[in-house]
Amino acid sequence: MIGLVFSLAPLSAGDKGNVELPKDFHSWNHVKSMVIFDKTSPFYGFHHVYVNDKGLKAMKKAEPYPDGTVFVAPFYDLVMEEGSYNQGPLVQTVIMKKNKKFAVTDGWAYEAYKAGDPIPQVGTPEAAVEACHNCHAGQEKTDFIFSKNMNE
Amino acid sequence: MIGLVFSLAPLSAGDKGNVELPKDFHSWNHVKSMVIFDKTSPFYGFHHVYVNDKGLKAMKKAEPYPDGTVFVAPFYDLVMEEGSYNQGPLVQTVIMKKNKKFAVTDGWAYEAYKAGDPIPQVGTPEAAVEACHNCHAGQEKTDFIFSKNMNE
Repeated sequence: MIGLVFSLAPLSAGDKGNVELPKDFHSWNHVKSMVIFDKTSPFYGFHHVYVNDKGLKAMKKAEPYPDGTVFVAPFYDLVMEEGSYNQGPLVQTVIMKKNKKFAVTDGWAYEAYKAGDPIPQVGTPEAAVEACHNCHAGQEKTDFIFSKNMNE
Repeated sequence: MIGLVFSLAPLSAGDKGNVELPKDFHSWNHVKSMVIFDKTSPFYGFHHVYVNDKGLKAMKKAEPYPDGTVFVAPFYDLVMEEGSYNQGPLVQTVIMKKNKKFAVTDGWAYEAYKAGDPIPQVGTPEAAVEACHNCHAGQEKTDFIFSKNMNE
């Protein structure tokens, strides 16, 4: 699920980006969470991974994901207290939506939104190649998805 | 949400316990996760907290929870690798269900199930007082629930 997100070209509020930010995804299917406490990682923080019903079916059967599959992963800051790591404020939310039209990224549309900011951070399929897909490309055997369902 | 779980009396497979283990709660509303890496804690591990729709409404309004509210928290072992904490195998799942009939625990039925074991670990309302509710009793202002919704 994870993709390194950075903006290759300035985007503005009028840009729709590759995928809109879904609503209510905390009530989708929660497949895993992870804490990355290595501060040198671009994914430092607490994150969760959710998939919609269409994607969960394919995940459980270990089949390629059908068009319309959506993965969403919100990333939070990390708060350490009393021997524990807790979620801090939301930092960004990243999205992958299966869409065969996005051929340059093997059928996945990638997007990212900073907390409270409606401007998409990736913007175009071409920008997603370097910003996201180059790393996911190594996961071809699982249809370019890193996450496994840890919550069955 | 968290309650110290231990069995006060031997229970057997025929015992129903205070609450049955709900199914498909990973598709309920996910309100928070937490990593407790302090190995001296009885709650050591990675855990998630889910609430059903009835409970989420009350949580968002900061109102007392209506009968039928259910919180579920699965606890996983902790796997540290490459600067991150990941979920390991499931250890136990704990449940709180609002039910006014459970007066001795202020209207909450508590139960716990070890991974892969159908025998309830708490068993009776009386056992839940020491095993769970004595610690939750300090959270009277939030209707005895520790968890806040971190995923709004």
